[in-house]
Amino acid sequence: MKVGVVGIGHGKFGRRSDATVQELACEPFRDALMDAGGISRNDIDFLSVGSSPEYHKQRSLPGVIAEYLGMNPQSTWLTEAACASGSAAIRTAYMAIKSGMHEIVAVIGVQKMTELTTPEILALMGRVGDVQWESIFGTTFPGYYAMYATRHMYEFGTTKEQMAMVAVKNHHYGALNPQAMFQKEVTIERCLSSEKVAYPLNVFDCCANADGAACIIMANEKKAKKLNDTPIWIDGVGSASAQMSVLRRPHFIGIPSTVEASKQAYKQAGIKPEDVQVAEVHDCFTIAELMAYEDLGFCKKGEGGKFIENKQSYIGGKTPVNVDGGLKAKGHPVGATGVSMTAEIVKQLRGQAGKRQVNAEIGLTHNVGGIGQYCFVHIYRR
Amino acid sequence: MKVGVVGIGHGKFGRRSDATVQELACEPFRDALMDAGGISRNDIDFLSVGSSPEYHKQRSLPGVIAEYLGMNPQSTWLTEAACASGSAAIRTAYMAIKSGMHEIVAVIGVQKMTELTTPEILALMGRVGDVQWESIFGTTFPGYYAMYATRHMYEFGTTKEQMAMVAVKNHHYGALNPQAMFQKEVTIERCLSSEKVAYPLNVFDCCANADGAACIIMANEKKAKKLNDTPIWIDGVGSASAQMSVLRRPHFIGIPSTVEASKQAYKQAGIKPEDVQVAEVHDCFTIAELMAYEDLGFCKKGEGGKFIENKQSYIGGKTPVNVDGGLKAKGHPVGATGVSMTAEIVKQLRGQAGKRQVNAEIGLTHNVGGIGQYCFVHIYRR
Repeated sequence: MKVGVVGIGHGKFGRRSDATVQELACEPFRDALMDAGGISRNDIDFLSVGSSPEYHKQRSLPGVIAEYLGMNPQSTWLTEAACASGSAAIRTAYMAIKSGMHEIVAVIGVQKMTELTTPEILALMGRVGDVQWESIFGTTFPGYYAMYATRHMYEFGTTKEQMAMVAVKNHHYGALNPQAMFQKEVTIERCLSSEKVAYPLNVFDCCANADGAACIIMANEKKAKKLNDTPIWIDGVGSASAQMSVLRRPHFIGIPSTVEASKQAYKQAGIKPEDVQVAEVHDCFTIAELMAYEDLGFCKKGEGGKFIENKQSYIGGKTPVNVDGGLKAKGHPVGATGVSMTAEIVKQLRGQAGKRQVNAEIGLTHNVGGIGQYCFVHIYRR
Repeated sequence: MKVGVVGIGHGKFGRRSDATVQELACEPFRDALMDAGGISRNDIDFLSVGSSPEYHKQRSLPGVIAEYLGMNPQSTWLTEAACASGSAAIRTAYMAIKSGMHEIVAVIGVQKMTELTTPEILALMGRVGDVQWESIFGTTFPGYYAMYATRHMYEFGTTKEQMAMVAVKNHHYGALNPQAMFQKEVTIERCLSSEKVAYPLNVFDCCANADGAACIIMANEKKAKKLNDTPIWIDGVGSASAQMSVLRRPHFIGIPSTVEASKQAYKQAGIKPEDVQVAEVHDCFTIAELMAYEDLGFCKKGEGGKFIENKQSYIGGKTPVNVDGGLKAKGHPVGATGVSMTAEIVKQLRGQAGKRQVNAEIGLTHNVGGIGQYCFVHIYRR
C-alpha cells in the first residue's frame, strides 16, 4: 500500500512575536486542509507533531495544539529527533498509515525560538551534543561543524569561497521565496567578510534560529487518490543514527547516518542518487550542504566544493538543491524544518513552485538531527 | 499480522544518583535482551525511546542511549506524551512492526527526576498544563487532581477514606515488588493523617517523582514465535486526546480520553471491560485510580469508591489493579511508567509474578499523559 501527500501548508518563517506556538501551527494546518481538497479536521484521525520541546515555555505541545485546532479526541503525540523532529514525525505518520491503523494523518512541524536570548539558545543547542563529555567543555553547534569544515578543507582542498557559494545560492533562491526569513541576495565578498563565528565559519555560513511551522496531510493510497488529482507518493524512507559523541565518529569528512539513511531510502524507492531531480538538504551550515552532496551520492566524496563551484546544485545543474532557500535563507525553526522541506518538494513535483520551478518527477528530503546523531531521508515521486 | 512482546526488563525505581540516564536505560535493556532468548542488540532494527525531555540536562536522549548501547546506525528517535511517553513509544513501535518496516523493536522508557529540586519539578510539571490560561495562575498537578477529587466527592459521595484505600492497596503490593521505590505497607490512618498537599489530597494520595527505566522487546508474529515460547500478544491499542485546558473539559468526574482510548482498544481486541483479568492503571493520584476503574468500565461511573472498598481491585477481586504497587508505590519516572506497566502485565500473563501472581490471560495497561490530554490503553493476551 502506497502512502501519499495530499495537502501542504507553510507559514512565514522568521521572528514571529505575533503568534503563539499554537497559532503558528494553525496557519499551515488550515492551508493544508484547503490544499487537500478542503477536507475537515474531523477527517484526520492522527495528528503527528514534530518539535524540539525545550525551546518553549509550554510543554506538551501536541496537547495544546490539538485543542486549539479542535482535534480532540483524536490521537496525538510528539515525535522528537532534534533538528530532524519534523522528518521523524513524518516517518511516524508514514508508519501509522502503512500499518493500516490510520487513514489520513496531519503532520505539523513547529518551533518558536526567537523569544530566547542567544546565550540561552547556544546553551540549549550545546546540550543536544554529548553533555557528559563534550558540551560541558563548551562545545557549540558552530564549533562542531567548524571541525568538520577544517577537516574537509585539509583532506580535499575545499575552500572558504566554495562554502560561501552555498550561501550565495541559497540566498539567491530564498529571495524568491515569500515564506523565507531572509529574502535578500548576498555576494561571496559579503559572506567572506561577515563576522567570524568559529573558524572557518562566518555568520553567513550559519543558518538562523527562527519561529515557524509547516504542515502536510498524508493519506493511504485509496484516500489519497480520492482527495487529490496529483498525490505525491512517498517512495522511500530511510532512518539512521550515528554516535552522539562526535569524538567517537569514524571521521570528520561526512555524516555516517546520512550515508546509511539514504542507502535505505534509495533501495526502497528503487532509484540511484543520480535519479534525484530536486533535493532539500540539511544546510544548517554551508559545510553541511557540501557534505550532503557527497554523502547522498550527488557527487563523489571530496567533490562537494567543485559541485557548487560548477553550479551543479543550481536549477539547470545536475541536482538542484535547496531552491527554496534552504535552512540558510528560510531560517531553521528546528521542528518545522523537515516538514517545510517536504512541502517544498511536493510543490516542486506538482509544478507549483513558480519562479523556482525545477522540472522534476523525483525529489528527496534530507534532514539531520543534532550533529548527525539522527538522519532521515525521504524520496518523493509524482 | 500480530505483534508480540518477547522480552522485558525493569530497573530499580527510586532515587538513582548512582546512574546516568544512559546507564539507567542500559539495565533493563540488557535484561530484556536476555529475556528475549538472548538475542543480540544487532537483531534490533529500531530503538523507540519514551521520555519527557525537559527533566534532563542531556537533550537528544535517544542519541546518547543508542551510542551507549552500541546501537548505531540503527534507527531511533524520541516519542513524548508527558506521563504517557512510554506508552506512546510502545504505540510507535507497534506501528513500526505492523507496517512491516521493522521486525524487532526495543522500547525503552526512561526518566531521571530526583536531581531537580521540588520547586523545579513543580514548575516543570505545571507547564504540562496550559501555560497561557492555567499554569500562569499557579496551577499544579496536585491542584488539578484535587479539583477532580472534590467534584467526585460532591457528585458521588466518594470519601477520603476510599481514596486512602487505594494507597493502602498499592503500598501493600509495592511491598512485594523489589523494583518499587517504596516497599512498605501503610495504613488508612497513616494516609489520612499525612501532610496535606491540596484538599482533599494528602501526601499519601500522591505518587512520587522517581528515576528509573524499563524496556520491552517487541517483534512481528513470525519472529515472536521463534524468540519466545510464550510471546504475549498486543491485541488492542487505543489512543486519544482531550482538551489541554481542563476548564474546557465537559466535566470533572472522569478523563474523557480514557473512555475514548479504552473503547478503541476493547473494540480492536474484541473484548469487554469485564474480560480484563489484570490491569495496570495510571494512579498518579489516588482519585485517578478510582476514576480509571469507572472510565475503563471495571465498574459504573461513581462506583469507584465502592469498588476499592469491596476490595474488587485486589487479587481475588473482580479486576486486580496495580498489583505491582502502581505509580503510587513503584514511583513515577514519567517516561518509564508506560513501559513498566507493560513489563508487569507480561510478567503476570506469563505466570512469573511470584507472590503477586494473578491468574490471568488478558491484561490491560492504562497510561495517562498530563491531566488526561493524552491517554493510551493497550490490551495484552497470553
